[in-house]
Amino acid sequence: MPESKEQTLPALWSEELLKSTLRGFRQEIDGALESILPPESQRPRKLHQAMRYSVFSGGKRLRSILVLGACELCGGKRAEALPTACAVELVHTYSLIHDDLPPLDDDDLRRGKPSSHKAFGEATAILTGDALLTLAFEIISRENPSELAGPLALELARAAGSEGMIAGQAMDMEPEGKENMDLLRYIHSHKTGSLIAVSVRMGAITARAPQKLLKKLSNYGQNLGLAFQITDDLLDVEGKAAKLGKPVRQDQEHGKLTYPSVLGLERSRTEAEKLIAKAVAELSSFGESSGFLQALARSILKRQY
Amino acid sequence: MPESKEQTLPALWSEELLKSTLRGFRQEIDGALESILPPESQRPRKLHQAMRYSVFSGGKRLRSILVLGACELCGGKRAEALPTACAVELVHTYSLIHDDLPPLDDDDLRRGKPSSHKAFGEATAILTGDALLTLAFEIISRENPSELAGPLALELARAAGSEGMIAGQAMDMEPEGKENMDLLRYIHSHKTGSLIAVSVRMGAITARAPQKLLKKLSNYGQNLGLAFQITDDLLDVEGKAAKLGKPVRQDQEHGKLTYPSVLGLERSRTEAEKLIAKAVAELSSFGESSGFLQALARSILKRQY
Repeated sequence: MPESKEQTLPALWSEELLKSTLRGFRQEIDGALESILPPESQRPRKLHQAMRYSVFSGGKRLRSILVLGACELCGGKRAEALPTACAVELVHTYSLIHDDLPPLDDDDLRRGKPSSHKAFGEATAILTGDALLTLAFEIISRENPSELAGPLALELARAAGSEGMIAGQAMDMEPEGKENMDLLRYIHSHKTGSLIAVSVRMGAITARAPQKLLKKLSNYGQNLGLAFQITDDLLDVEGKAAKLGKPVRQDQEHGKLTYPSVLGLERSRTEAEKLIAKAVAELSSFGESSGFLQALARSILKRQY
Repeated sequence: MPESKEQTLPALWSEELLKSTLRGFRQEIDGALESILPPESQRPRKLHQAMRYSVFSGGKRLRSILVLGACELCGGKRAEALPTACAVELVHTYSLIHDDLPPLDDDDLRRGKPSSHKAFGEATAILTGDALLTLAFEIISRENPSELAGPLALELARAAGSEGMIAGQAMDMEPEGKENMDLLRYIHSHKTGSLIAVSVRMGAITARAPQKLLKKLSNYGQNLGLAFQITDDLLDVEGKAAKLGKPVRQDQEHGKLTYPSVLGLERSRTEAEKLIAKAVAELSSFGESSGFLQALARSILKRQY
């Protein structure tokens, strides 16, 4: 009955319901992050201050919300996935801090505030990223049951490492083959897609989802991740500086490869829509219970999440 | 019979025996690292090249050797501890790469070769450190039995994080209270001591050592780690540039707090000797089988290992 689903789900998940659900998830995640991060009163104070500054800088918590949503969809309890959700958020934050550094993207602003190295200096920003990455693995291995700690740490490390997220960033800096569509897809699916995809996987793994469901959710995550990067590129070009809180068009200024620069605006938008449709299709066998993850995916196109 | 032990052990572990044992351990570790690191032929090539460049730059492998030695002493097989030994070496290498960066220690040379950012540029050096840190957790969680993966990842993350190794580096950069002896000890025991101490602990954990032995080996590792940092400071002052492969006296130039600058050369040397004696004393209940770790500790004073 795919028709009835298509008719039912958007009604079940109105924009309002999605927004209020996301708000609730964010509160849970922020509360958990608050208790996980070392207090600023504790040595080394500047470092701990810098860690909190970037973690609580107004991120939308997409990745951690995906961990919670996938866990619930597979029959797990949200609370069980909360530490892992926090860990993903820490990895995401570390990657932004390091990417913003002058030798990399050299961004002075992040979410409308001075980026970490502008606020605390480059040395502290480097160490802050290192500390957040390390803390992510501390939380995963400390807060999960022993049979899950290893597999979850492995998932996260693979997705974040030199053949995952860092691979995308590293290839993005290399000058060769920028017009190559395969390379563009490689960069984006690694740089942004890996962490988004693994968020969904880790939520499912926490709920002990069987391989078949895990595979579907992995596909959902991969398509979502790539679509997310494309819409990010589109926003960048379309100059919604206020919404993003960072200078626009800087990807182009830096000679970075983006979907709009290779495919043009229209085809990029179509590509993002196709990817979201694919992502949503992967959820069909879950039925109505997947309404949240469907609505979340659709909201990516509008960047309302 | 403490006397007989004192008489027996040095004879059992001649300088020659120690050297050849260390050589054997290093070969095992280097072989394992070779198979663990992604090939240079694989994307992202420059990053993988930079990872191998720093990992195979002639390090003495002290930390990974301690993992193997502690595992054997507690009745485990060396091969079981080899992945964890590699992980520690990856964390150590990442910390050197990031410490050498211009905003931090700004060192152009490391072990007589251009440091990572001189050889590959700052952006790649930052990502290379990130990738090695991440790979360490990948290896720990992939290559250990499930009941050990979590505990070992937790040990490593705590020791390397914002309340371990990074705490030492962060406090070392802060200007206040440099003459304070407590702060000096804090910095050194965190910056260098944490990772050395956890290496010993992880070896013992791999061998499923009981708490009592684990405690003794932790004390051994902590004393050893602090002694190691003091002898490093002494070498720095005494100007053995050729041996260290890096410019001497730079710690003082950077206004960094060191044992020699606070206590003077003589008292620093005495302090290191005391710490090594304490470390060795922790091994007494292990008897002759601890000969290797005793000899290794004593060699720290001469930096012959």
